[in-house]
Amino acid sequence: MSEQPPTKQRKVEDAKVSKEAFLAVFENLAKDVLDDEFVKRQPEYAQKWISFMQSYNVPKGKLNRGMAVLDGLLTIKPDLTEAEVEEANILGWCIEWLQAFFLVADDLMDDSVTRRGQPCWYKRKEVGTVACNDSIFLEASIYRILKKHFRTKPYYVQLLDLFLETTFQTSTGQLLDLITAPPGVVDLSKYEMKTYNTIVEFKTAYYSFYLPLACGMVLGGVDKEEAFESCKEICVEMGTYFQAQDDYLDCFGDPEVIGKIGTDIEDNKCGWLICKGLEKMNEAQKKTIQENYGKKDPSCVAKIKAVYREIDVEKDFKEYENESYKRLQELIERQTFVPAGLYMKLLKKIYKRQK
Amino acid sequence: MSEQPPTKQRKVEDAKVSKEAFLAVFENLAKDVLDDEFVKRQPEYAQKWISFMQSYNVPKGKLNRGMAVLDGLLTIKPDLTEAEVEEANILGWCIEWLQAFFLVADDLMDDSVTRRGQPCWYKRKEVGTVACNDSIFLEASIYRILKKHFRTKPYYVQLLDLFLETTFQTSTGQLLDLITAPPGVVDLSKYEMKTYNTIVEFKTAYYSFYLPLACGMVLGGVDKEEAFESCKEICVEMGTYFQAQDDYLDCFGDPEVIGKIGTDIEDNKCGWLICKGLEKMNEAQKKTIQENYGKKDPSCVAKIKAVYREIDVEKDFKEYENESYKRLQELIERQTFVPAGLYMKLLKKIYKRQK
Ligand SMILES: [Mg+2]
Ligand SMILES: [Mg+2]
Ligand SMILES: [Mg+2]
Ligand SMILES: [Mg+2]
Ligand SMILES: [Mg+2]
Ligand SMILES: [Mg+2]
Repeated sequence: MSEQPPTKQRKVEDAKVSKEAFLAVFENLAKDVLDDEFVKRQPEYAQKWISFMQSYNVPKGKLNRGMAVLDGLLTIKPDLTEAEVEEANILGWCIEWLQAFFLVADDLMDDSVTRRGQPCWYKRKEVGTVACNDSIFLEASIYRILKKHFRTKPYYVQLLDLFLETTFQTSTGQLLDLITAPPGVVDLSKYEMKTYNTIVEFKTAYYSFYLPLACGMVLGGVDKEEAFESCKEICVEMGTYFQAQDDYLDCFGDPEVIGKIGTDIEDNKCGWLICKGLEKMNEAQKKTIQENYGKKDPSCVAKIKAVYREIDVEKDFKEYENESYKRLQELIERQTFVPAGLYMKLLKKIYKRQK
Repeated sequence: MSEQPPTKQRKVEDAKVSKEAFLAVFENLAKDVLDDEFVKRQPEYAQKWISFMQSYNVPKGKLNRGMAVLDGLLTIKPDLTEAEVEEANILGWCIEWLQAFFLVADDLMDDSVTRRGQPCWYKRKEVGTVACNDSIFLEASIYRILKKHFRTKPYYVQLLDLFLETTFQTSTGQLLDLITAPPGVVDLSKYEMKTYNTIVEFKTAYYSFYLPLACGMVLGGVDKEEAFESCKEICVEMGTYFQAQDDYLDCFGDPEVIGKIGTDIEDNKCGWLICKGLEKMNEAQKKTIQENYGKKDPSCVAKIKAVYREIDVEKDFKEYENESYKRLQELIERQTFVPAGLYMKLLKKIYKRQK
């Protein structure tokens, strides 16, 4: 008998948490979907569509959410076998699949142009509203992957419930985002921080922060209900901060760097800048907002941005950023369920991000 | 102590399987969704949207699929307690929710006008592409309902797997339906019965037939893998027949009776009539199809229907209908896993249907 433990049980080093290693797992999972018995039954042109569609939409992001599962798990359980690393990365990719599912639909609904440095999927000539079904297919693929890799695990139901609950929460947030400011109706009374906070808690925080950390906790054997509740609370704060950044970058970020052209002003969005800005605008500035917000015309957009500059809403954002960081640090240090590193690794990745 | 068993354990009579009783269950489930902790956190206008949206889209169909769960369960286990009846009807409604989820997206993608005698949801002025998220929300609601009512049952995972697998299958079928005949490209070689059969197996048969019967079997305690495999085989045949009817009615049915205006010809669909028709058209007729199929122009549609009448494809349909019925009867009588009534009740409901 060999003195070496079998490959899958060898310990891995932290250095292995790399984008390259993570992307290698994508290739396997993409193949799992294409090898699925039901996909194999489809004509070749349908299999090709699925292959191209999932490569176009799933693996092109920053991968922060997906990689956070292993990153988080390592803070709870620093010595992992290769099999455990693999499981964490598979769950990480399920989150990236979930994100792709929501983004494909989101871009169609927001009438967006680019995403991750390429045209939005629905913008492709051959796609259009078929994107709606592709989005559904991407979501359904998650559960094929989960079934293939976790069906026999004692925590399989817990994973299903977690992904399904997160999907429900996110769709609730997306709804609120969409109907709070419908196209063509600029009702300034709607842009309130209270509403904003509800929108972003539901549309962003649960799937982007809670889901990856909760997956890491499930794999790490955390089982106290309170640990998950505490994680939710921290993730809602972190997700809110993250979405405020997203809104800030949508307006003031460099499209080349963020990989998309912001359309929040054109889309009449209830974003952080408008909610915060309205708290300090004078009547004349409010009038400019009323007349120019939610219009596709670039000169209208320029007028909105000019008001934002006049009132220096960037300064408010920087202040909010610092305060939120402090609040998060406190929340994280106060809890004792998991190592603070679980949260701090993720927080450091997003703090003062440029993209 | 009372001599009466508690209400929930009293036996129910077959007469209770009525549309009225079934609809009463909808009211409770719709309320469950509205009372969901995450929905309750939304502003009132979002709660109102959800309430209206689900009432508009979930309970307005023929309800055949939903009512088939209890109908089927009764053939396996004729003496049911009220609690068992309730469980069957809840699962039945989950199937209606699943159908609503797919139809809301389907109408948007097919550019349809009416559904169930009312404008398609996405056609409403305030909705548009928000329908895409409403569709996602409807789907996610299924798992809130399942969790609330079945979380503690030993067959909870089996139910989740069943609904999730069916969703994957259906989205695969929808994809094939959409890309086999893209708008503006009339490639007659694509309209083949082989492709047609794959499309309808995946887009219709699993969710419309297998899912309700499999739910009834799960509740009825059927646990042999082969019983479910046999059910799949029969349901694929029945679902194919049902979709062929749907295609026939789309062209030749009365819009007042079927509740929608057919758009299959305009949508360039790979439907039963075109696949069957092409097998017997002469070159001149094929040329007419080539030049007029997939166009919104009513005069083009009329030319297609004229060819269908020339070749009397209606006659082929009636023949197919009779043959398929015979084949189904044989398949049903041959299997011994479940009472034949499980299938025959459903088959009788759809055989020679006018809507
Ligand atoms: Mg959006
Ligand atoms: Mg967007
Ligand atoms: Mg944004
Ligand atoms: Mg369709
Ligand atoms: Mg349709
Ligand atoms: Mg049809």
